[in-house]
Amino acid sequence: MPAEDAIFRGAMRLLASGVTIVATNCRGEYSGLTATAVCSLALSPARILASVNRAGRTYERIVESRIMSVNLLAEDHAPLADRFAGRTGAVGEDRFAHAAWEERVTGAPLLGNALAALDCRITEIVQLDTHALLIGVVEDILFGPARAPLLHFDGGFATALAPCSGGRDA
Amino acid sequence: MPAEDAIFRGAMRLLASGVTIVATNCRGEYSGLTATAVCSLALSPARILASVNRAGRTYERIVESRIMSVNLLAEDHAPLADRFAGRTGAVGEDRFAHAAWEERVTGAPLLGNALAALDCRITEIVQLDTHALLIGVVEDILFGPARAPLLHFDGGFATALAPCSGGRDA
Repeated sequence: MPAEDAIFRGAMRLLASGVTIVATNCRGEYSGLTATAVCSLALSPARILASVNRAGRTYERIVESRIMSVNLLAEDHAPLADRFAGRTGAVGEDRFAHAAWEERVTGAPLLGNALAALDCRITEIVQLDTHALLIGVVEDILFGPARAPLLHFDGGFATALAPCSGGRDA
Repeated sequence: MPAEDAIFRGAMRLLASGVTIVATNCRGEYSGLTATAVCSLALSPARILASVNRAGRTYERIVESRIMSVNLLAEDHAPLADRFAGRTGAVGEDRFAHAAWEERVTGAPLLGNALAALDCRITEIVQLDTHALLIGVVEDILFGPARAPLLHFDGGFATALAPCSGGRDA
């Protein structure tokens, strides 16, 4: 029997993840949300996956526009992450105020001072009940200033501490 | 034109992620690898996704056994993560020495002192050139002692620093 949702949620709080903003540009209008379920998928061509809730407006607009940006946030972006998670009450294009966004290849909005902002064209959408997997080929990448990442762990934001030993490829 | 692999790799180094061990039990033999491309997928039933390289032995055995565990590592697990990443030269079942593993519902090996160890039955495998997305329903969860997570960021291991403000659901 599958694990109960509440217990599963408790376990998933312990899966540390980088915080990102997934955004799109649909007929000239920006839309975006905070997402933590993002991972690198494959090379040649470079591809990335983001799992987003199908109930939201951003999902609908990505399905229509077939483009998305995935913006990797730095520790100083906690207020922006709250804004795109809907915690400040800002909706739609209003979420994009107070930060500098630019368009490159696809037209999706890229956060100028993200750790990295990936400009993607959607190649595949896998629908799974409440969520959908958005798979995109990365057409361009914008790098912002290097700094510590914004993380989500145990129900709140955190940042990364100086590396432990190990973990480096030879 | 898609981003060059080297530049994409550079960006993906900046996507902080929790470090996990994905393992299976195929006809009584354990096999496992270190994975950082793991995310929560959906509730009701609880589902998780792991992206793993199709070239490895663990992938083949998960395809055959249709079970996997996803073990969320703590900061003191850096040597274990190196071991399952092949950095110590340990292969096959030898990787499982020096740590306590247990079987619950599916028979996949669960790391006793992981932050959380998820016991999963594979429901879907999406093949993508070099990698495959393994989607599993979570049948059971084992919780180890609460502590800081092991992260991968910027080419090395790290851990999480005490939470910044914000990021909490109301």
